[in-house]
Amino acid sequence: MRSGISKAVIRRLPRYYRYLGELQENGTERISSAELSALMDVTASQIRQDLNHFGGFGQQGYGYNVATLRSEIARILGIDRTHKMIIAGVGSFGQTLAKYFAEGGRAGFVLIGLFDNDPALEGTVVAGLPVRMMRDLPAFAAAEKPEIAALTVPKSAVAEAAEAMAGAGIRAIWNFAHADLHVPDGVAVENVHLLDSLMTLSYGITEGGPEEERE
Amino acid sequence: MRSGISKAVIRRLPRYYRYLGELQENGTERISSAELSALMDVTASQIRQDLNHFGGFGQQGYGYNVATLRSEIARILGIDRTHKMIIAGVGSFGQTLAKYFAEGGRAGFVLIGLFDNDPALEGTVVAGLPVRMMRDLPAFAAAEKPEIAALTVPKSAVAEAAEAMAGAGIRAIWNFAHADLHVPDGVAVENVHLLDSLMTLSYGITEGGPEEERE
Repeated sequence: MRSGISKAVIRRLPRYYRYLGELQENGTERISSAELSALMDVTASQIRQDLNHFGGFGQQGYGYNVATLRSEIARILGIDRTHKMIIAGVGSFGQTLAKYFAEGGRAGFVLIGLFDNDPALEGTVVAGLPVRMMRDLPAFAAAEKPEIAALTVPKSAVAEAAEAMAGAGIRAIWNFAHADLHVPDGVAVENVHLLDSLMTLSYGITEGGPEEERE
Repeated sequence: MRSGISKAVIRRLPRYYRYLGELQENGTERISSAELSALMDVTASQIRQDLNHFGGFGQQGYGYNVATLRSEIARILGIDRTHKMIIAGVGSFGQTLAKYFAEGGRAGFVLIGLFDNDPALEGTVVAGLPVRMMRDLPAFAAAEKPEIAALTVPKSAVAEAAEAMAGAGIRAIWNFAHADLHVPDGVAVENVHLLDSLMTLSYGITEGGPEEERE
């Protein structure tokens, strides 16, 4: 059933999941594609197309059952079960990320380990977890079987860190270094580029702004 | 010239900018769309289409001049000049972001102020800047004219913070709270949803994995 679903559709699913969660919190039991469209600022036809990929949860004249659709999207995304995660790179951003996940309630993602290369950090505790050295990763991974690694290391160290992760059997890499990461087949990767979104924002205030006269 | 450029194209420009920067660092002076295509894992036709929006920087049989194309993209994105930025919400993530920008070299984005609502933080120094109270924002903004506000406040506080920003004349909001933010016309917004990208990653390891048998 999943085959043929484009990456673009998959990328939109977490947003549906988020909105459906808010509807559920507000006690909404069902919603039409027109209502969902207005809420999410996506065309109703886009919504119908997207959700049709997963069978027809909507019924003519009824709309979508919020709880059913949300749990189906969770199943498709694989967030209906927990995922063990580690963080490599316990600098400022790594520590922030660790604290965020330590708070819990992160859609089933559970932080189980922290890794770094700096001997000064070995054994220090961040967000309730001891910082381990990268050399200990293979043994840790064999025992604990983490699936996902967040890489919050400097750009210069990210290729090596990704290789170590793949070697230790990590199946998914969440990369925060400002470089696109290429990984072996069978390893999933998401590159998060915060500066890219900031540049898009810069465009938004440049267009039509005083700089327009430069053209 | 800019009119009619789709948001999708604009969103790809920072990535071109990043790759062209790396080419420039490596001393590459020109590149064909085929080479750029292989490097960026985008089709050559996509590249030609994208870059044709901005006039024809490429020449048949020559390719693109790396430095010229990069500086033209910078001009279009509005990152050929500096942008003053503030951060609202000086918790763990706000502090991390502050330190990141304090290091400099962030494509012309300059952090000039930190704001929070917690009186205990007033006057404490983070990344070289004193934390100010939100009530002081209007006077600060009138004097210093920041353009961009990064919102690293809790989800429950983000709507109010965005309103305060718009009221103080901020033109662009970089939202990190896990909720889509709707802002007045004339204010640009980028919602960064880290959990969304993590869920996409979860899909990547669910598809074809042991969970496939549930279908």
